[in-house]
Amino acid sequence: MHVAIPLYPRFTALDVVGPYTALAFAPGWKVTFVAGQPGPVTDDQGSLTLMATASYEEVPRPDVIVVPGGPGTVAAMNDTALTGWLAAAHEHTTWTASVCSGSFVLAAAGLLAGRRATSHWGWVEHLQGLGTEPVSERVVFDGKIVTAAGVSAGIDMGLELLARESGEGTAQAVQLAIEYDPRPPYDMKTLDGRRDEAMKLISID
Amino acid sequence: MHVAIPLYPRFTALDVVGPYTALAFAPGWKVTFVAGQPGPVTDDQGSLTLMATASYEEVPRPDVIVVPGGPGTVAAMNDTALTGWLAAAHEHTTWTASVCSGSFVLAAAGLLAGRRATSHWGWVEHLQGLGTEPVSERVVFDGKIVTAAGVSAGIDMGLELLARESGEGTAQAVQLAIEYDPRPPYDMKTLDGRRDEAMKLISID
Repeated sequence: MHVAIPLYPRFTALDVVGPYTALAFAPGWKVTFVAGQPGPVTDDQGSLTLMATASYEEVPRPDVIVVPGGPGTVAAMNDTALTGWLAAAHEHTTWTASVCSGSFVLAAAGLLAGRRATSHWGWVEHLQGLGTEPVSERVVFDGKIVTAAGVSAGIDMGLELLARESGEGTAQAVQLAIEYDPRPPYDMKTLDGRRDEAMKLISID
Repeated sequence: MHVAIPLYPRFTALDVVGPYTALAFAPGWKVTFVAGQPGPVTDDQGSLTLMATASYEEVPRPDVIVVPGGPGTVAAMNDTALTGWLAAAHEHTTWTASVCSGSFVLAAAGLLAGRRATSHWGWVEHLQGLGTEPVSERVVFDGKIVTAAGVSAGIDMGLELLARESGEGTAQAVQLAIEYDPRPPYDMKTLDGRRDEAMKLISID
């Protein structure tokens, strides 16, 4: 399976590297980072730069697309080179996916009309204004559209995609290889009082 | 706090980006990717390239070091520019940390003698041969040395480091911002039968 992950300025790095790791570790899967032009693309913190190795035109028919989120989402929604590629490539994908606010980029490309989809907890309700049914779940499948909740949810999504496409044995081997036995220090249900502070760390402009 | 993350050929990307995300999202924290020379460094899959923006010499006194693991570990253990920098910089760090097989690089720099430390489940026992007490825990603190288990454990380590250094409120806000409420598809305790298959996906040479 050939996966294309588009990079745009101010993407969130873990949105990219979570699903990348789950998928690229699997035998027979290959990931290409794409952008308007091949070259360096810098993340939301201004400190991590990933290389795009191909232009959108060079990867017209990937089997899987994973669109990351990040503070650069609004600019990405207005980037017609990106949304045009998404709309055209989606016609031929097996799976079209997003992490975090990446679902808003899928919506901007016209791919979420009438669909159930998710996003980061801070913005998921805004999907409604785009004609999409917001769903507060970790990973949402609707046909071949797959959306994940905020940032770290891309790891869970990657493993679920792998299970569906390559079988549970492969997904289990990858989960074990990346020792994905997470121990978050806090129970998320206890953190509601930190919501304002959290949103300051991940605002979209 | 200034964090330096050394990159070496065939590092595992999530070992880097997990702790990077936990720490770089926090107010007042800054991360620099370092290498022998600034420039691109490619990961274990051959498909993800991160930019190192400074040489080791340019970052002699970071507050925190996080050494990733990956199939390139053995070569990294023999890279005296890296191990020399680690040994010298460690004298002044607040925390010196590793993810996955990165603990073997700390050992090669002479930093784990007589210490308790962890690594990926597939190699943790081999730490004993390096004069270190292997501990099968997710994150191990021994003085200012912090080691994390395989690949994805760096996220947990990053949040724990943040809690100790910047307070629990900050760690909670970051956990919420990155929506770290993981739902691994499989219970790790049920996956022992996949161990051989998993190790083929993450061998070190």
